[in-house]
Amino acid sequence: MRSTVIDTAAIIAVGSELLTPYRADSNSLFLTARLNDLAIEVQGKAIVGDDRKRLALAIERGLKDADLIVMTGGLGPTDDDITRETLATVLDAPLVERQEILSLIRARFAAHNLEMPEINRRQALVPRGAEIISNARGTAPGLWLEWQERVVVALPGPPRELEPMVDGPILKRLEPRVSNLRLRRRVVGVSGRAESQVEEHARPLYARWKDRNPVVRATILGSPGQVELHLSTRASNLRKAEDSLDLAVEELVGALGRDVYTTEGLPLELVVGNSLRSHGWRIALAESCTGGLLASRLTDVPGSSAYLDLAVVTYSNLEKINLLGVPASLIERHGAVSEPVALAMASGVATRAKAEIGVGVTGIAGPTGGTKAKPVGTVFVAVTGVGGERAKVFAFRGERDMVKRQASQAALDMLRRILDDHE
Amino acid sequence: MRSTVIDTAAIIAVGSELLTPYRADSNSLFLTARLNDLAIEVQGKAIVGDDRKRLALAIERGLKDADLIVMTGGLGPTDDDITRETLATVLDAPLVERQEILSLIRARFAAHNLEMPEINRRQALVPRGAEIISNARGTAPGLWLEWQERVVVALPGPPRELEPMVDGPILKRLEPRVSNLRLRRRVVGVSGRAESQVEEHARPLYARWKDRNPVVRATILGSPGQVELHLSTRASNLRKAEDSLDLAVEELVGALGRDVYTTEGLPLELVVGNSLRSHGWRIALAESCTGGLLASRLTDVPGSSAYLDLAVVTYSNLEKINLLGVPASLIERHGAVSEPVALAMASGVATRAKAEIGVGVTGIAGPTGGTKAKPVGTVFVAVTGVGGERAKVFAFRGERDMVKRQASQAALDMLRRILDDHE
Repeated sequence: MRSTVIDTAAIIAVGSELLTPYRADSNSLFLTARLNDLAIEVQGKAIVGDDRKRLALAIERGLKDADLIVMTGGLGPTDDDITRETLATVLDAPLVERQEILSLIRARFAAHNLEMPEINRRQALVPRGAEIISNARGTAPGLWLEWQERVVVALPGPPRELEPMVDGPILKRLEPRVSNLRLRRRVVGVSGRAESQVEEHARPLYARWKDRNPVVRATILGSPGQVELHLSTRASNLRKAEDSLDLAVEELVGALGRDVYTTEGLPLELVVGNSLRSHGWRIALAESCTGGLLASRLTDVPGSSAYLDLAVVTYSNLEKINLLGVPASLIERHGAVSEPVALAMASGVATRAKAEIGVGVTGIAGPTGGTKAKPVGTVFVAVTGVGGERAKVFAFRGERDMVKRQASQAALDMLRRILDDHE
Repeated sequence: MRSTVIDTAAIIAVGSELLTPYRADSNSLFLTARLNDLAIEVQGKAIVGDDRKRLALAIERGLKDADLIVMTGGLGPTDDDITRETLATVLDAPLVERQEILSLIRARFAAHNLEMPEINRRQALVPRGAEIISNARGTAPGLWLEWQERVVVALPGPPRELEPMVDGPILKRLEPRVSNLRLRRRVVGVSGRAESQVEEHARPLYARWKDRNPVVRATILGSPGQVELHLSTRASNLRKAEDSLDLAVEELVGALGRDVYTTEGLPLELVVGNSLRSHGWRIALAESCTGGLLASRLTDVPGSSAYLDLAVVTYSNLEKINLLGVPASLIERHGAVSEPVALAMASGVATRAKAEIGVGVTGIAGPTGGTKAKPVGTVFVAVTGVGGERAKVFAFRGERDMVKRQASQAALDMLRRILDDHE
């Protein structure tokens, strides 16, 4: 084993399906997270189809670019699976059949009372000199190859096979090979401001962070209804790295105030859930335009049954009247999409569920149903209970699913602020 | 303008955020779909950070690999935005300031009563000889460059800016430059079978399709609760291409029978929605473990208010009893996660909403709450109405969100089959 320090990586995803409009490479996000933890920086990603010539080119280029090449996919048993052969050609290490792999594959089939199809024999062929990375969840073993000053790792494509292989044997092999620098990250979540408004407040801080030791780098990422700031730093002294990040986070919170909902990358539904739990309050939801998305997001949190008993999706006026007790006259006077109806939905569902807090959401998700006074994207969110009732109107842009998403985000954000006020 | 035919493309996504664990390149899926429509095959994708040297290398490699290079990102006004300068260097076409761009950017700011910040002036710099692709939704114009036998297109990163630029001026410029071959695709959706079971039935067909004229190629893609088969063919004679695909789809349906829910790539919730609409039936939902996901998926479909009035998420036993009229004795005897309770939830919500069809879902999404007899992933789905009541138990694997997803998929699939029986 050579002693070169591994600082940089290139990721190569192999598979013609990754060059169709239907499937994106997702393994590289997981891989990047794990490599970054070891302060290995990903310098580029390449995606190639099941084409020997092109894959060979990609591997050759990867070997020029980075200390470590991580390949995913192309280790299956069929003709389309070209990673093994192409590696053998590029690294000039002919394929040899490894009996220990063959036995493992046979044993996997035997466990299901099946005989190994002859085609799977191909998976026991590996470039000479390769170390085998065993795969507990599939027939394709991974490969670890040393070539000149480089390391090449080949892993199967399915995430559930790849992930435990990385978290176990791959990280163990990488650890003694990396520098003593470590990368640390923080994710600060912001809601209630547009990306450009966040940027405006954060930008003066970036300059300051560049002069810190260690330097703190920042990236801003906006998505519907929220903005994330990703801060990172690298240092051999972990205490100094954490202090540098703590200070930067503190400055951000100082600049953005209550719009910061997390400094540790938690999703908003989990922040709200944790707050409900610590208050010991229960919540009930009455949704119209969000159609169950708000309930689904809140119930994505394990243990959410502790604070959520009931959510209803009342798409029709009749159900708003019958189930939630919204007065018919209110709907007649203001329309189903209105602040009074949102408030009546919230208090109606809370009363029914005997919950401390009620939420009502009514709006126009589109593409039809908009009017001049209330165009598509108009959404009223109301929260009742714990000392008051509040309602807010929003004008969201985008398609139906975007409106649903932003409306659910706005409701969670209102809840978060109300719960915070009672801390 | 040169007359080389554009057959192949390479996509280069530029941006350091695309090399973090948090953000994947999504533009390339959209771009691939549009390029494929013109029979341009994407031969590879590269993702590079905001690094001039590496980007230059990626462009040089792209120019070797493909007829067309489509670049996304790096056209903003800041120092990190390096696409313009790097293109100028690689293509040896110095940057020149274009007055028409400057005026447009100034006008955009003026429309918001703002003065153009000096920094935005950079966006008016373009490599000499570039054609400008105007951007209706942002300050960064796109670039179209001809270089030797190649075409290089540079587009801004935000999808809402990029997409209309592609659908308008870019496709218009590409159309006269492509071969007379056209690519056609079909997406066949299958539910109720594992990927390996679908593969087993489809594999004998693949071989037959390889001998057709034109050849039909197939890719299989599994995701929780469904399998998709993507068929494609290329031909100059569109009629022959369509016939070839029609025949292949017919053979697939013959092999897979009723497990095929769409032959045109529709999501299952839309197939169910269309079927409900054509029957003129309304549906009501009672969810426990899916927590609103089933309602949210059904209401993702525009116009779903035509067949959905009411959905309830009854997480607690009390609400199952009070709101849905599930007998307390039933819960005591069988437990809340049981077939009788799922059936009582379905009929209870249908009665309340006066809907023709009721759906009840109860299960254990995890990570806690499992028992030996009913482990995490146990889910009962019941459908009542239109001539009967049916219930089924499932044993799903995976995390909480995977269980929710598969359970919602199973419920939609049961609905689909029942609705089909009444056609």
